[in-house]
Amino acid sequence: QGILERLDAGEIVIGDGGFVIALEKRGYVKAGPWTPEATVEHPEAVRQLHREFLRAGANVLQTFTFYATEDKLENRGNYVAEKISCQKVNEAACDIAREVADEGDALVAGGVSQTPSYLSCKDKTEVKAAFRQQLDVFMKKNVDFLIAEYFEHVEEAVWAVEVLKESGKPVAATMCIGPEGDMHGVSPGQCAVQLVKAGASIVGVNCHFDPETSLETVRLMKEGLQAAKLKAHLMSQPLAFHTPDCGKQGFIDLPEFPFGLEPRILTRWDVQRYARKAYDLGIRFIGGCCGFEPYHIRAIAEELAPERGFLPEASEKHGSWGDSLSMHTKPWVRARARKEYWENLKPASGRPYCPSMSKPDGWGVTKGAKELMQQKEATTEQQLKELFQKKK
Amino acid sequence: QGILERLDAGEIVIGDGGFVIALEKRGYVKAGPWTPEATVEHPEAVRQLHREFLRAGANVLQTFTFYATEDKLENRGNYVAEKISCQKVNEAACDIAREVADEGDALVAGGVSQTPSYLSCKDKTEVKAAFRQQLDVFMKKNVDFLIAEYFEHVEEAVWAVEVLKESGKPVAATMCIGPEGDMHGVSPGQCAVQLVKAGASIVGVNCHFDPETSLETVRLMKEGLQAAKLKAHLMSQPLAFHTPDCGKQGFIDLPEFPFGLEPRILTRWDVQRYARKAYDLGIRFIGGCCGFEPYHIRAIAEELAPERGFLPEASEKHGSWGDSLSMHTKPWVRARARKEYWENLKPASGRPYCPSMSKPDGWGVTKGAKELMQQKEATTEQQLKELFQKKK
Amino acid sequence: QGILERLDAGEIVIGDGGFVIALEKRGYVKAGPWTPEATVEHPEAVRQLHREFLRAGANVLQTFTFYATEDKLENRGNYVAEKISCQKVNEAACDIAREVADEGDALVAGGVSQTPSYLSCKDKTEVKAAFRQQLDVFMKKNVDFLIAEYFEHVEEAVWAVEVLKESGKPVAATMCIGPEGDMHGVSPGQCAVQLVKAGASIVGVNCHFDPETSLETVRLMKEGLQAAKLKAHLMSQPLAFHTPDCGKQGFIDLPEFPFGLEPRILTRWDVQRYARKAYDLGIRFIGGCCGFEPYHIRAIAEELAPERGFLPEASEKHGSWGDSLSMHTKPWVRARARKEYWENLKPASGRPYCPSMSKPDGWGVTKGAKELMQQKEATTEQQLKELFQKKK
Amino acid sequence: QGILERLDAGEIVIGDGGFVIALEKRGYVKAGPWTPEATVEHPEAVRQLHREFLRAGANVLQTFTFYATEDKLENRGNYVAEKISCQKVNEAACDIAREVADEGDALVAGGVSQTPSYLSCKDKTEVKAAFRQQLDVFMKKNVDFLIAEYFEHVEEAVWAVEVLKESGKPVAATMCIGPEGDMHGVSPGQCAVQLVKAGASIVGVNCHFDPETSLETVRLMKEGLQAAKLKAHLMSQPLAFHTPDCGKQGFIDLPEFPFGLEPRILTRWDVQRYARKAYDLGIRFIGGCCGFEPYHIRAIAEELAPERGFLPEASEKHGSWGDSLSMHTKPWVRARARKEYWENLKPASGRPYCPSMSKPDGWGVTKGAKELMQQKEATTEQQLKELFQKKK
Repeated sequence: QGILERLDAGEIVIGDGGFVIALEKRGYVKAGPWTPEATVEHPEAVRQLHREFLRAGANVLQTFTFYATEDKLENRGNYVAEKISCQKVNEAACDIAREVADEGDALVAGGVSQTPSYLSCKDKTEVKAAFRQQLDVFMKKNVDFLIAEYFEHVEEAVWAVEVLKESGKPVAATMCIGPEGDMHGVSPGQCAVQLVKAGASIVGVNCHFDPETSLETVRLMKEGLQAAKLKAHLMSQPLAFHTPDCGKQGFIDLPEFPFGLEPRILTRWDVQRYARKAYDLGIRFIGGCCGFEPYHIRAIAEELAPERGFLPEASEKHGSWGDSLSMHTKPWVRARARKEYWENLKPASGRPYCPSMSKPDGWGVTKGAKELMQQKEATTEQQLKELFQKKK
Repeated sequence: QGILERLDAGEIVIGDGGFVIALEKRGYVKAGPWTPEATVEHPEAVRQLHREFLRAGANVLQTFTFYATEDKLENRGNYVAEKISCQKVNEAACDIAREVADEGDALVAGGVSQTPSYLSCKDKTEVKAAFRQQLDVFMKKNVDFLIAEYFEHVEEAVWAVEVLKESGKPVAATMCIGPEGDMHGVSPGQCAVQLVKAGASIVGVNCHFDPETSLETVRLMKEGLQAAKLKAHLMSQPLAFHTPDCGKQGFIDLPEFPFGLEPRILTRWDVQRYARKAYDLGIRFIGGCCGFEPYHIRAIAEELAPERGFLPEASEKHGSWGDSLSMHTKPWVRARARKEYWENLKPASGRPYCPSMSKPDGWGVTKGAKELMQQKEATTEQQLKELFQKKK
Repeated sequence: QGILERLDAGEIVIGDGGFVIALEKRGYVKAGPWTPEATVEHPEAVRQLHREFLRAGANVLQTFTFYATEDKLENRGNYVAEKISCQKVNEAACDIAREVADEGDALVAGGVSQTPSYLSCKDKTEVKAAFRQQLDVFMKKNVDFLIAEYFEHVEEAVWAVEVLKESGKPVAATMCIGPEGDMHGVSPGQCAVQLVKAGASIVGVNCHFDPETSLETVRLMKEGLQAAKLKAHLMSQPLAFHTPDCGKQGFIDLPEFPFGLEPRILTRWDVQRYARKAYDLGIRFIGGCCGFEPYHIRAIAEELAPERGFLPEASEKHGSWGDSLSMHTKPWVRARARKEYWENLKPASGRPYCPSMSKPDGWGVTKGAKELMQQKEATTEQQLKELFQKKK
Repeated sequence: QGILERLDAGEIVIGDGGFVIALEKRGYVKAGPWTPEATVEHPEAVRQLHREFLRAGANVLQTFTFYATEDKLENRGNYVAEKISCQKVNEAACDIAREVADEGDALVAGGVSQTPSYLSCKDKTEVKAAFRQQLDVFMKKNVDFLIAEYFEHVEEAVWAVEVLKESGKPVAATMCIGPEGDMHGVSPGQCAVQLVKAGASIVGVNCHFDPETSLETVRLMKEGLQAAKLKAHLMSQPLAFHTPDCGKQGFIDLPEFPFGLEPRILTRWDVQRYARKAYDLGIRFIGGCCGFEPYHIRAIAEELAPERGFLPEASEKHGSWGDSLSMHTKPWVRARARKEYWENLKPASGRPYCPSMSKPDGWGVTKGAKELMQQKEATTEQQLKELFQKKK
């Protein structure tokens, strides 16, 4: 059954987790460029991560094609060990995802994301061409549906949806925005409306913010759609990092990004809380983005097991709410084998010299600066640099 | 070249990271029993983790045979999906480690750890028999050397070393203790002396405490050996969790163990600090235990690259000290592409409702209680239970 | 010169600090009732605190008549050692304030605050009568001007201003609200407009929130006045406690109120930051409320000394920005004798087992609950109780 | 009844709180020099603080003669508004203390503290002369007993005790040290032994460390005395600041000293815990030092009211364990009117950008540095400076 049949039938669809952060830690992706050449260089590593998400309960395996447009791979070409063509990367990604999906009950989703071309003000035709190049591979490899994800500007997201809709396959679209809206100031509600009008059947958010913030953004999208009398399925794939201190542009601006985010990582119990809240909000496509490891996805599947009627395969190796601790030799560890314990735990950081929140970097701090940045966001790198120098 | 040839020549040997915590998160190990039946059930997952550590720079691949004695596997038998024999688990572990070791420059180390038999007061013969059963497999599979690790009681560790020495292969021995010594109150210095006298060529600590605490323990071991005019190589494989608030028995007693430890996870920069400090202390076998992911091991290899003269394979996907950020589009993120930035960062937890330290559970808090526990440590589970009830 | 002459001339007027919290710590006021019978029972203690604020730079001494209406004193009568009449309390407050004011350059302001009568739904006539009783004393004792302060409902504040205006003296009015507005949902801007229309020449906020939040509220008041083309002087007297975690009703709902607020106390440097920000926002009557001790008021006077051209008397005992440390025997303490040091210090709490933020108590957490509370706020105690029981 | 009669009879004697920190905040003492010329300049302020401590339950009023030796006052002479003679300062201090003591049931204790002369290596005769000058005033003014307090070096403390003993009056002696002992490395136990042998009838610690650390130091003193078969009464007057992160030299080295200590201030409940623990340890002279405000002293008196059989005067304005909140209008605030609530509260700092602990400044961090400092402690300022430069 396809993605829309499942969602239309009221099923809960569980997404997968974050590839670039997980594979960076495993040694296959470079932070900064974040490009997915590993599909060609080390397919076994990509395959293994897909498999872990599948075992954890994911019903959708996204092709590892994040940032895999020609312009991005070229731009970062000097980082890639040997030049690997954009087409090869995308094809390998599809093959690996399909191979693992066939090991279980999962759909393959071909994914596109924001492009350097858009940010450097290339026109609509050029940006759309980049998406079309990826789409050609997705069609050839016959993925089950398509996702346009990680867009900061709804304008570009709409272009992506328009291209993907040419395929005739179902299209989902998520933006990496918070409650304040996209980088041009378009509200979440308006973003959702534009995406659905462009042809997306599923809309929501991914990345950039923690579950709490992301769910608030989806709530605003839902309100926007209701006000416009539009219908669409809702989707959320937030960070697995706590980011209450983020500004408008999300976790990129936090001083800890990307190499000091560890103290912010969600526990499995944080994820269970997220899954429940997402469900209660009416979201039925529930997954994760950066920071979501297989055990985080399993936590979604376990929290929603009562609704779904089954546990994922990987729960064979996990006692619900810590009950595998009931046989521990120490009585006080056995006492942790219960829901109330883990639900109420306020985990310590072991870092007494560190604060609990950070001030985001960038110009995002004051109102005036935010406006400045917004106006300038779509200009060239060089202009941004000069602006920054002047402000200093 | 064997382990002792390398160490005797002054080489730095990099160990691997933690298997049980990493594979629990990937969905292949159950917290509580922590047994390694995955070597038979899902060899591809174990193989992939070995490979990641190898790429990250590990020179030693430890067979995934932690807690793989007959008594432990039986004890926890109900957790194992299908009954898998102790022998099969150990054999598969050896085969996988060897297969991956041959892909690079690594030695295979067969590992034994503390047994339920000892804790339930079985006699020396019985405990030794458990180790010998594992050793038989290690000899048949011809591992390169042997490690007795994760011992809370030096008495049991000595027995393990004595058994392993029968093989004629080099033996390393590490205890999971802190500066206060073993559970019977034997000081780190005395532990080291007893282990070397029993035949260990390499001694140190693993698990239970963070790098800072573990290095202090190794320092005390070193002092003990010097005072006794004994020679041995030093080794450290600490946790990748900050645990300044631990009591004598280490992180097991922290309220966050094992499902809420995320905020304590070391950053790669914390690991570089550890690697440098370990090196300066004279330790030449430097690795990690629970919580050490491949990127943590790579951080050891990168910190000590000047001394070793080369970087590990996985550094192709890692700019030293964050320099891969120098091409980021935002100027304030580019400003993070330097050593001083990451060295001085005090990472926030994003958890303003959580404390920075916890009070350990258990009877470990007051002096009297500690003594009580020590005296009773070797008694049966039942007695511990009753004691606990009485105290309540 | 009167208060309006000073403000009209562009002078900065410095208010005094908080009496009830300071005198509670000194042993003369009871937390809970918070009534000012000390003016009769221990005039020397009240006099001394006035004198300290005067030395610290205060240009206004408020009579210690907070909660000194008949209905409040009666209500809490059982707490008062011997029955002391409302009139006596108010008269003594005026006498003490005048005595100290005459020792320096300060005005005496007679103050009224919210009444139990209003909260228990007494009508306008009755509530106004309570204020008029206090006003009679203020007129007899000839205070210099009047302040209506600590109102949660603008309706009651307007009634107070109307009564005070009968005197012909200048009237200031401050509400204890945050940016969300008063307890009936009237926005700060609207509150300001209503108060000025009722006759207040000076408007602003006091109590309930930290400086940052309070200044945001005053900013909204200023915007409201501008939009309505009304003119008034601005005033702020916030808490000397950090309260970023407050809900709509302010610090009362924080779990730490009132006996565990210590870790939140502002440093003198926090206050200097506040004074500067208040000045930059156009506020010219700058003081403090609960938690402001004499050294906090001095910090306002020191920060604004460049603008005012003089330091307060108590600065004889204070080196600006810590420069009195320059003669310390330890070089590292001498190194603290500079502005940059104290400006950038992030002071530690010494409380590693405590969080940095709290969840407010009450029904104030969710939106729905807030509305419920708002609707019910003016009902009887009994109804509140029942409502609370039902919700549990 | 004299101090020894009371203690010998098993009475609990409650000390007063900290003068220099409290009067600095009130505007009468200058941080840095910390000298007590306020006794002459503003006697009413000193009198009022004495009175508040008396009301709070203090049985001993210490003359405000801290740092009031000729050499100290001269040394800091440029800070004193008009030159005021050492003799005048000490005489006024005695007069004020006596005046207030006579208002209740309190003894007057004349106090001496460490001298600049000792630190700059003046000989025994000269140092003793400084103490004798103060003692002459104490005898003339007929104080009830004498306290030698705030000594970092037991050698100087012994000299002080020897001088004070010449008077024939009872002598108490407290050192401002932690469990590591005095600045020459003399252990707390040894310090206590030397002080008692010199003639002190009461020994203990004051200042520099929080209650927890201070009580551990007194425990070590008690052990030392027992081992030496000496008898003395025990006394503790710790800081009212949490200082778990202090090094050997105490809170002076914390980056927050002295103008950013607010987040560390003890709550009244922290003080009750301290009072109970002190009592349980056998201490019967229980008071406070820097940071102890009147309400902190009252908390000692309230905690020990069951043992003493009465409450202090200021408890008229304090409901035990918050019970004055039981009449609050909000049900959730009324719910705080109970012991369990305040005992278990972990108060938040409201400072999410601040850490919970600091690294002390100075050379105190590493072992080697500590030794260096110890050896050099008694040298001149100039040498210290040079040493510091060299180390940098």
